[in-house]
Amino acid sequence: MVNRGGTCVRRTQVGIVGAGPAGLFLAHLLHRQGIESVIVENRSRAEIEGTIRAGVLEQWTVDLMNEMGLGARMMREAHFHSGITLRFNGDSHHIDMEGLTGGKRVTVYAQHEVIRDLVAARLEDGGEIVFNVGETSLHDLDTDRPKIRYRCGKDGEVEEIHCDFIAGCDGFHGPSRAAIPAAVRTDYQKVYPFGWLGILTEAPPSHPELIYANHERGFALLSTRSPEIQRLYIQCDPKDDIAHWSDDRIWSELHARLATKGGWSLTEGPIFQKGIIAMRSFVCDPMQRGRLFIAGDAAHIVPPTGAKGLNLAVADVVVLSRGLVDHYRSGRLERLEQYSATALRRIWKAERFSWYMTTMLHRNEAETPFEQRIHLADLDYVVHSHAAATALAENYVGLPID
Amino acid sequence: MVNRGGTCVRRTQVGIVGAGPAGLFLAHLLHRQGIESVIVENRSRAEIEGTIRAGVLEQWTVDLMNEMGLGARMMREAHFHSGITLRFNGDSHHIDMEGLTGGKRVTVYAQHEVIRDLVAARLEDGGEIVFNVGETSLHDLDTDRPKIRYRCGKDGEVEEIHCDFIAGCDGFHGPSRAAIPAAVRTDYQKVYPFGWLGILTEAPPSHPELIYANHERGFALLSTRSPEIQRLYIQCDPKDDIAHWSDDRIWSELHARLATKGGWSLTEGPIFQKGIIAMRSFVCDPMQRGRLFIAGDAAHIVPPTGAKGLNLAVADVVVLSRGLVDHYRSGRLERLEQYSATALRRIWKAERFSWYMTTMLHRNEAETPFEQRIHLADLDYVVHSHAAATALAENYVGLPID
Repeated sequence: MVNRGGTCVRRTQVGIVGAGPAGLFLAHLLHRQGIESVIVENRSRAEIEGTIRAGVLEQWTVDLMNEMGLGARMMREAHFHSGITLRFNGDSHHIDMEGLTGGKRVTVYAQHEVIRDLVAARLEDGGEIVFNVGETSLHDLDTDRPKIRYRCGKDGEVEEIHCDFIAGCDGFHGPSRAAIPAAVRTDYQKVYPFGWLGILTEAPPSHPELIYANHERGFALLSTRSPEIQRLYIQCDPKDDIAHWSDDRIWSELHARLATKGGWSLTEGPIFQKGIIAMRSFVCDPMQRGRLFIAGDAAHIVPPTGAKGLNLAVADVVVLSRGLVDHYRSGRLERLEQYSATALRRIWKAERFSWYMTTMLHRNEAETPFEQRIHLADLDYVVHSHAAATALAENYVGLPID
Repeated sequence: MVNRGGTCVRRTQVGIVGAGPAGLFLAHLLHRQGIESVIVENRSRAEIEGTIRAGVLEQWTVDLMNEMGLGARMMREAHFHSGITLRFNGDSHHIDMEGLTGGKRVTVYAQHEVIRDLVAARLEDGGEIVFNVGETSLHDLDTDRPKIRYRCGKDGEVEEIHCDFIAGCDGFHGPSRAAIPAAVRTDYQKVYPFGWLGILTEAPPSHPELIYANHERGFALLSTRSPEIQRLYIQCDPKDDIAHWSDDRIWSELHARLATKGGWSLTEGPIFQKGIIAMRSFVCDPMQRGRLFIAGDAAHIVPPTGAKGLNLAVADVVVLSRGLVDHYRSGRLERLEQYSATALRRIWKAERFSWYMTTMLHRNEAETPFEQRIHLADLDYVVHSHAAATALAENYVGLPID
């Protein structure tokens, strides 16, 4: 680091804003190709490692973790499911993803666990992650020497990272997307008229795999976090106040919506966390401006129904890293310039799948009775057609990256 | 026929209202099981045989025609396609239905040709079709001797058919559906905000198979009727006046919407028929009341995009004939009482497919840009995924009848 006119300046090849899955995977992907990077992150290490977030990994994400030597703990601690269960009209139907996709599985491994593994490995490799930065801003994006400026800590010194390229991996509310001028950018958005009320409960698993239920009272999702902790969701008004939801009311809804013919029953336990999240779909096109490339939630949001969020972020930086590697090897910019177009094609397919799963599984009072029945017909079709179940499965376990 | 108190009375086992595909197929299906029926039809034979309507037959419909000995002319004159072409973003993609479904083909044979074949064979078999009836009404449906009453010709005598069961195959505007009281009936409906402007033109085929195009100016469909006559459609405002559409304007839209990279071009010819149709989806549940069973357009409507209309009508009467045969053989009514539930399950899947094809292929200005892009992503997905293309194909060539 050098001090230029009172501002500390670091120099690196790729400056990365954000130590989420996109930023961390990118740093690792570049490192193994000999490209150096620095990550700046406005939260602390404890915060990013401690924020509990669900995680369903696509098969290629799991394979990539292992290929990069980052998968040891995941392979020990993750839960590997052969499929998911769809429940509607009181019946349960197992979608055997492993059988339908030639062996690809559903890996349940929480996002913060992925982050812990990637942070530890990055620091061990001597990689640099600057935590707790403030007032991050991007500069000179249209030159070949773009800069990330930030304050070290709340009242700390201003520092700059001078780099060849910037990767904006700073989430939906970060400054990167805003650096692509609105005049050249199209934001596509859909806000769904429902949210998810999620709980964490101390209870043994009620079922070994995920159950997605479409019930006349609304959607419900059962997932297992560990032998002791379960994660469950119910569709609710996104503007509802969690204070209206007593534990009794939540359990009563979960029992009703997850009910099925036969002997199955839901195991209750103390609820130790609950909250309501809104659901939206969002895509920013293009995902680049000059020497800035945005990835992950900075560029797109999916509703959680398709379990695509983390995987989409990793897919983006796989595409981005290929462009960067190509540039550093050959001096060419062509592949990098195709980043947005290449990434968006797969992103739109994942957006489609997330929208399909979301509209098929939720009850939307704004829809006509005809449309509501269409979703039930869709479920009836998908669980009885080998082709349709295969289509669902191949999306759920992850489409290939072009 | 006997005369009772001034009214001529016929007696048959199954009274059928309507000589469209549903009514005619039903009469044939019953006949070969030794069950007698009489059809009443408010149009003339010339009219039902001369009203030109498109027809795409599912593979099992073709097989059924052949099995019943009604397929000779169809096998000589129909066009058999191995698939369809989807065109979007200027690219053409062939969906090889024959390859994807293990040999099932798309058979193009117009509905009025099917009707000609079925009427001729029915009369040859000694079957009775009373044409040109008026003021048809249904009576005593909750008894075991329901009646069809009608006037023979415009000012003719009133006649009655006394039967064991009535099949209401009288189309969307016939009296049968109305005989199921609104209090026990749910009508599901979706009216699409676009229509089809269809033309018949005297021109050689521009392409050997159907082309479905999603273009930013709206949907277009190219189909071939014969070596001399082509049928083409373009999406338009359903309330538009056909007078606003000069032949030049129609050709200009067709050229723009069907354009593709490469050397293909559309061949023009004199337009000798043009008109605008509205598009809707409709399902009536239940499809029965007492001794009345409704089938075909009387019970449900699909937009033409999925080419399902005729096939759905035939599937209904296959299910209905099984219930009737079971009753006449065993005296049981159970299977017949399951008619509506059994038929509706497949009908909803066909409604889903027709809705999917319609929403995916048309431009709907009422949708958000996000939703419009989702449809393009759906097309991009379906033409590149073997599983998704197979799902489309298996629906297009016809799902099995339970």
